Amino acid sequence: MSETNRFQIEHLGAPNYKSPLQLSTVRGDHIFNFVSESDRLVFDISMDQYAHCLSTGEEPNCLEKAGPRQNIFFDPKETTAAIVTCGGLCPGINNVIRGVVMALHYFYGIKRIMGVPYGYEGLNPEIGHGFVELTPEKVKDIHQFGGTFLGSSRGGQDVSVMVDTLESNNINMLFAIGGDGTLKGVDAIGEEIKKRGANISVVGIPKTIDNDIDLIDESFGFETAFDVASPIIRDAHNEAAGAYNGISIVKLMGRDSGFIAASAALAMPVVNFVLIPEMDFQLEGELGFLGVLRERLERKKHAVIVVAEGAGQQLFTDKNRVKDASGNVKHSDIGVFLKERIKEYFTDIPVTIKYIDPSYIVRSAPANSSDSVYCSRLAYHAVHGAMAGKTKFVACKVNNKFVYIPITEVTKKRKKIDLESEFWFSVLQSTGQPFLLK
Amino acid sequence: MSETNRFQIEHLGAPNYKSPLQLSTVRGDHIFNFVSESDRLVFDISMDQYAHCLSTGEEPNCLEKAGPRQNIFFDPKETTAAIVTCGGLCPGINNVIRGVVMALHYFYGIKRIMGVPYGYEGLNPEIGHGFVELTPEKVKDIHQFGGTFLGSSRGGQDVSVMVDTLESNNINMLFAIGGDGTLKGVDAIGEEIKKRGANISVVGIPKTIDNDIDLIDESFGFETAFDVASPIIRDAHNEAAGAYNGISIVKLMGRDSGFIAASAALAMPVVNFVLIPEMDFQLEGELGFLGVLRERLERKKHAVIVVAEGAGQQLFTDKNRVKDASGNVKHSDIGVFLKERIKEYFTDIPVTIKYIDPSYIVRSAPANSSDSVYCSRLAYHAVHGAMAGKTKFVACKVNNKFVYIPITEVTKKRKKIDLESEFWFSVLQSTGQPFLLK
Amino acid sequence: MSETNRFQIEHLGAPNYKSPLQLSTVRGDHIFNFVSESDRLVFDISMDQYAHCLSTGEEPNCLEKAGPRQNIFFDPKETTAAIVTCGGLCPGINNVIRGVVMALHYFYGIKRIMGVPYGYEGLNPEIGHGFVELTPEKVKDIHQFGGTFLGSSRGGQDVSVMVDTLESNNINMLFAIGGDGTLKGVDAIGEEIKKRGANISVVGIPKTIDNDIDLIDESFGFETAFDVASPIIRDAHNEAAGAYNGISIVKLMGRDSGFIAASAALAMPVVNFVLIPEMDFQLEGELGFLGVLRERLERKKHAVIVVAEGAGQQLFTDKNRVKDASGNVKHSDIGVFLKERIKEYFTDIPVTIKYIDPSYIVRSAPANSSDSVYCSRLAYHAVHGAMAGKTKFVACKVNNKFVYIPITEVTKKRKKIDLESEFWFSVLQSTGQPFLLK
Amino acid sequence: MSETNRFQIEHLGAPNYKSPLQLSTVRGDHIFNFVSESDRLVFDISMDQYAHCLSTGEEPNCLEKAGPRQNIFFDPKETTAAIVTCGGLCPGINNVIRGVVMALHYFYGIKRIMGVPYGYEGLNPEIGHGFVELTPEKVKDIHQFGGTFLGSSRGGQDVSVMVDTLESNNINMLFAIGGDGTLKGVDAIGEEIKKRGANISVVGIPKTIDNDIDLIDESFGFETAFDVASPIIRDAHNEAAGAYNGISIVKLMGRDSGFIAASAALAMPVVNFVLIPEMDFQLEGELGFLGVLRERLERKKHAVIVVAEGAGQQLFTDKNRVKDASGNVKHSDIGVFLKERIKEYFTDIPVTIKYIDPSYIVRSAPANSSDSVYCSRLAYHAVHGAMAGKTKFVACKVNNKFVYIPITEVTKKRKKIDLESEFWFSVLQSTGQPFLLK
Repeated sequence: MSETNRFQIEHLGAPNYKSPLQLSTVRGDHIFNFVSESDRLVFDISMDQYAHCLSTGEEPNCLEKAGPRQNIFFDPKETTAAIVTCGGLCPGINNVIRGVVMALHYFYGIKRIMGVPYGYEGLNPEIGHGFVELTPEKVKDIHQFGGTFLGSSRGGQDVSVMVDTLESNNINMLFAIGGDGTLKGVDAIGEEIKKRGANISVVGIPKTIDNDIDLIDESFGFETAFDVASPIIRDAHNEAAGAYNGISIVKLMGRDSGFIAASAALAMPVVNFVLIPEMDFQLEGELGFLGVLRERLERKKHAVIVVAEGAGQQLFTDKNRVKDASGNVKHSDIGVFLKERIKEYFTDIPVTIKYIDPSYIVRSAPANSSDSVYCSRLAYHAVHGAMAGKTKFVACKVNNKFVYIPITEVTKKRKKIDLESEFWFSVLQSTGQPFLLK
Repeated sequence: MSETNRFQIEHLGAPNYKSPLQLSTVRGDHIFNFVSESDRLVFDISMDQYAHCLSTGEEPNCLEKAGPRQNIFFDPKETTAAIVTCGGLCPGINNVIRGVVMALHYFYGIKRIMGVPYGYEGLNPEIGHGFVELTPEKVKDIHQFGGTFLGSSRGGQDVSVMVDTLESNNINMLFAIGGDGTLKGVDAIGEEIKKRGANISVVGIPKTIDNDIDLIDESFGFETAFDVASPIIRDAHNEAAGAYNGISIVKLMGRDSGFIAASAALAMPVVNFVLIPEMDFQLEGELGFLGVLRERLERKKHAVIVVAEGAGQQLFTDKNRVKDASGNVKHSDIGVFLKERIKEYFTDIPVTIKYIDPSYIVRSAPANSSDSVYCSRLAYHAVHGAMAGKTKFVACKVNNKFVYIPITEVTKKRKKIDLESEFWFSVLQSTGQPFLLK
Repeated sequence: MSETNRFQIEHLGAPNYKSPLQLSTVRGDHIFNFVSESDRLVFDISMDQYAHCLSTGEEPNCLEKAGPRQNIFFDPKETTAAIVTCGGLCPGINNVIRGVVMALHYFYGIKRIMGVPYGYEGLNPEIGHGFVELTPEKVKDIHQFGGTFLGSSRGGQDVSVMVDTLESNNINMLFAIGGDGTLKGVDAIGEEIKKRGANISVVGIPKTIDNDIDLIDESFGFETAFDVASPIIRDAHNEAAGAYNGISIVKLMGRDSGFIAASAALAMPVVNFVLIPEMDFQLEGELGFLGVLRERLERKKHAVIVVAEGAGQQLFTDKNRVKDASGNVKHSDIGVFLKERIKEYFTDIPVTIKYIDPSYIVRSAPANSSDSVYCSRLAYHAVHGAMAGKTKFVACKVNNKFVYIPITEVTKKRKKIDLESEFWFSVLQSTGQPFLLK
Repeated sequence: MSETNRFQIEHLGAPNYKSPLQLSTVRGDHIFNFVSESDRLVFDISMDQYAHCLSTGEEPNCLEKAGPRQNIFFDPKETTAAIVTCGGLCPGINNVIRGVVMALHYFYGIKRIMGVPYGYEGLNPEIGHGFVELTPEKVKDIHQFGGTFLGSSRGGQDVSVMVDTLESNNINMLFAIGGDGTLKGVDAIGEEIKKRGANISVVGIPKTIDNDIDLIDESFGFETAFDVASPIIRDAHNEAAGAYNGISIVKLMGRDSGFIAASAALAMPVVNFVLIPEMDFQLEGELGFLGVLRERLERKKHAVIVVAEGAGQQLFTDKNRVKDASGNVKHSDIGVFLKERIKEYFTDIPVTIKYIDPSYIVRSAPANSSDSVYCSRLAYHAVHGAMAGKTKFVACKVNNKFVYIPITEVTKKRKKIDLESEFWFSVLQSTGQPFLLK
């Protein structure tokens, strides 16, 4: 298979129905045009890639443009959709649920939409949560609330059982809002459906508050996350400055990637140290973290530290590492660890340490305006893609455009902060911390 | 000493200076009248007390009305003031600092105002924090920030040393913003000053985020506290409802009194249980907390618990009880304890428990509008009292009026929630929890 | 009729049913006690009144304590309630609706609760809005939204028609949430009911964002109003300071009383002038407003003015005065007027004037935490009173206690700011404006 | 000049000083690399452009990558910088000021930084505002406030006079934060400097709350603008739904481009109509706005309209069009106009219309977190570019990367919403309004 086909989306079959949307196919009439199946966008827009293609004549990797198709696979009158939300909370889930319901109902006239309660558990009849029918009336206000209207759970269920449930309930399309594990799950469901030759489209809507899904632009909820964290850092600064040699430690989400910690620190420029998983650092030694912290206290009498939950894992011994229900490595609490080590270290001068862990407050907040805009558009595109009969894909934004990508492509690895990027440099410029802490 | 004198304020001496304020002494000219030294307000406004006085002819206890006096003790041209903030953070401290500085500077023309850094430590020259001079320009924006502009510390310093510092710096009045311990400290300073025959007025401005200072109406920062806690409870509800049998535990401040927990729960009516220090409760037994919680989960599949930090101390063994630097009994963490006990108890059904402790976020927030109004007025009254030569008093609000009370009267005991009051009943009505959990 | 009976509440008849509430009648069992019909609270708690009664032996005026009665008039199984919201929006209306529904349903087991749409219009079948049935499920989240879930309208309807509607729908109690006009309306409805000898209780829940209902403490929504206005004043200050001789005028609600303007200005101490209806002022003359404003600009190069909508009416000619649908005098726009006059006046120096009218933003905001607490308690007490068979009363707070007062007592006149009160003095201290502007 | 040189930045001369920044030049050491003068980014990343270049062999247009250079033009020890802010307020101005001061002071060690008060007026000594010296201490908290710390003004000053002022004050670099007019002004200043052969770098930092500067990604403050507008739209919806046939009209900024109106409507999906300058529409006729509005009211009994200030100008006659001090065409008030026309049109049914204009509230708000992050990075890049001796350029973000572009390129025309774009389609999907209103 050529590299070019890497981003090819699978379809359930030929789209034999006319879309009910009254759109155009020509420019100039001020009416949006149906998106053609051949519309593509360049994936790698770097100068290097450009030069490479120019010199070799190679075609660049391209992504399928998202949007409504003129011909669709599903007959709206006969279609039932289902929505499931999995994993941890993230701002914007309800906006996505709302957007999917509104798009199915108002754009395509689909009247039967099932909400699957409590994540993949809801697709296992043995657990017996039942379904909840979704209507515009029921979801019209949910965007103003954080959390998930449908409930969630961690971990998977037997794929075969879940597909049985979809089939026995005559469900034609499943929208799964979730992270890395959920997306792998929905892909497995899609594979099982394919094996059975069923006409069920499965769509992933990537949800990761950590912003660590590969290939895609910022994930929904991420901006809200650091928007909510930012005044908490301001408060932490108040706490630190309120005591002689006051030190505040704020732990933020970020298991493998420090985007929230770094962005929140940049947004509220009272932070002196940001510690992230991507960065190897030591506590001891002249250029280690504790020595630099001491130097800061001597100059300014207070310090604010923002630490991502996955930072400093190199400081722990292996025995602490356990896995949670979704199979993610659970980390030892770096915040508590830092607090203890700082306390032990400063035996010669009085320090006051405050440790703040606002994780649940951040993740259960309602979406801010940018994320609300993003979630609505994402939901609409997910629906357009499913109606066209596409399957095992995610709707997402790449290079600031909405596209469809095969699920398998975004779950290969995590997105991380490049320590030599302009972004991380801007964080260091803002905090004044050294490049290396060792 | 007759009961009537219980609320008598001490004065440094006769007020021989004319107030620079251009006020009136007659009604009807639309200009505020100087408050007379004989203006009094009834302390106990209950019907019972009324009837008692009517029948016995006894005079009721009365409080000194706060406000500007026509004759003042200190010569503004020769006066130096100092401000100190002690103990934990509380919304509104900066508003009070700002108000005191503005009142001293603009109302009375006092040009030398010293900020004492880091609480009573700042009055001990050996620790060497120095003073910081305060001007309107320096403090004009601080009301928009939480924390304390001056820094704070817990615990006391040698009274004699502190009075030495006041004398050697020619300070004529000390405004101390702090809680129970701080107020006792400022009274001790006042006693030492009296012994030395020095002309230094000491004023307490009661600060207690827990709202547990006796006699006075709601203390400043308290409304902000539950205003900030309220959306966090909404988030906690999102977390609980987002999981099957999801349980959220939110721990709020309240060492001896549960006002914040109760008010926040009432403000955000998604709370199912409020546990406060005033209430004795058991975990086990049919009517114990765990059984009632189980019954709730069976009906609704999620629960939100708000617990004051000082609640449930009867559940701990004595050995855990230690004291902090201010001499307060430090409690074992009831939130962590509850989380563990709930987890142990529900072995037969799956539960998901989230524990949220937003204490630092709550206490370091900026004052909301009600508290901002309150803090400005409180600060102005503290200044008017000090200028009149009063000493060892607090400026505060009682029965919705600003009054002066001797410090010793408000530090005798803590204010607590009456379990048979309309307030606590309204909390139980809102949550639906039973009166007794045992 | 003796003065003492001024606050006597009418009853529909003897309370022959046992309350379903499991409350107590003794102190010490940690269970709230039923409130006795004879529980009274002193109305006027001033020292003067106290002295007067003590010396003359007169009984003081007393108010009925609000709360659940042991014996109730209505049989919960057979009772239907209705709720109507009238007049302009005010933060907290939805909290009150929610509280009334929850109290009726959960405390008393009343299953039929009708929402009357669009104010008194909803009681006129000719207009034909119909009723909407209210359940806990329907109202459980509405407290998080501003506005009124039921819709509102201004003005009255034919009293006889409205009582016909209540009777023909078997409604036993009507809760009317509204201002002065609404309360007069509900009293008229109660009179008509009495004339017909019908067993329908009518209850007013006073709603006035202006805080101008007489006798009662702060009305619900008022604290939220100045809490929402306060950051808008901060923004207005940014606008003023952002231009050379920048002047911002913020118009706030307050037809007859300037409480919102005064409180908002005190809460955000960047305001230099507060103009309220209670205050007579002139524009011209050395001590007139324009001259003082000029002096301010010369010193500081910017100014912030907060003006209540009803201020400065003496500056208008009579011909502009018209009445709105509720019969209130509609004022000419003082904000626009001031802007024009200021512009005309400063011909010699450049000024930049910004006029901001955030009225709709303020009144349609959701209740803040203090108001949420207040609204729930108010709603509960309204229900307890109605169940006891009381009628033509308001549930309200006086001297910080919940009481019942005859509607006629609170609609006699408006509450206004006393220009010689400590409150107004504190506003002038904060702004630095002179007592008199003429 | 070839198209490729279109984006070439001018330099004052050879960069003969070593940058004081301790950066790297190799990948892999976890230290940010100096940006090379030859680092370029493709401007047009569309598939079409890609295909065009591939087939023709043409080089694509490229942009200069922003960032710190290893060799710089100015000797930090001898350099004085100045900052000026012009035009209307926009969230984030203070963050940019702060970022520029911090970068100059901490990264490059520049100690003399002058704030120019009140826009270009501050560069005209005849007006006599003087300069204000800026230090990290002075600006450290200003990011928490909206407005501009330096003050602003509209319109230009004599270019020659302004350059005289820069020269006589030994200023080596001028950072001008402003919109289209300001940027043209700073370019003219740069031209005059060039003519005189002076060594003064001039840098534009594009500020447009309307998001209408051409070529660049979203401008700073824009996200905050619709984030602040969004809850106001929620309130407007409360107002509309609170009355029978309630109609709320919210006017938002957007003289030539409707980005704020469209984004705010998408963010708060209660909006039924968005009217923007890019869209031609009629009021009358079956498919005109009023007819469609009537149809909406018949179905739902309320409607929310968001209108950009520059929308519907085709409805006005020419005589109303005047220009403001900056030379922008001042529009007639479309909000007031709509309100009146709607009122006139609905003579047969009762409607209640609320008109809300929150413009000043939106533009004077503090930056939200996304904008804070953006502003800091933008400021740092502006400083790096100026230190390298570049001039007459803007620091900005294109295709999500920070670049430098000649000022003349971004002031050629306004950025507008493409009515056939996915963005505008998503707005119409959200509101349900037809593509054409005529």
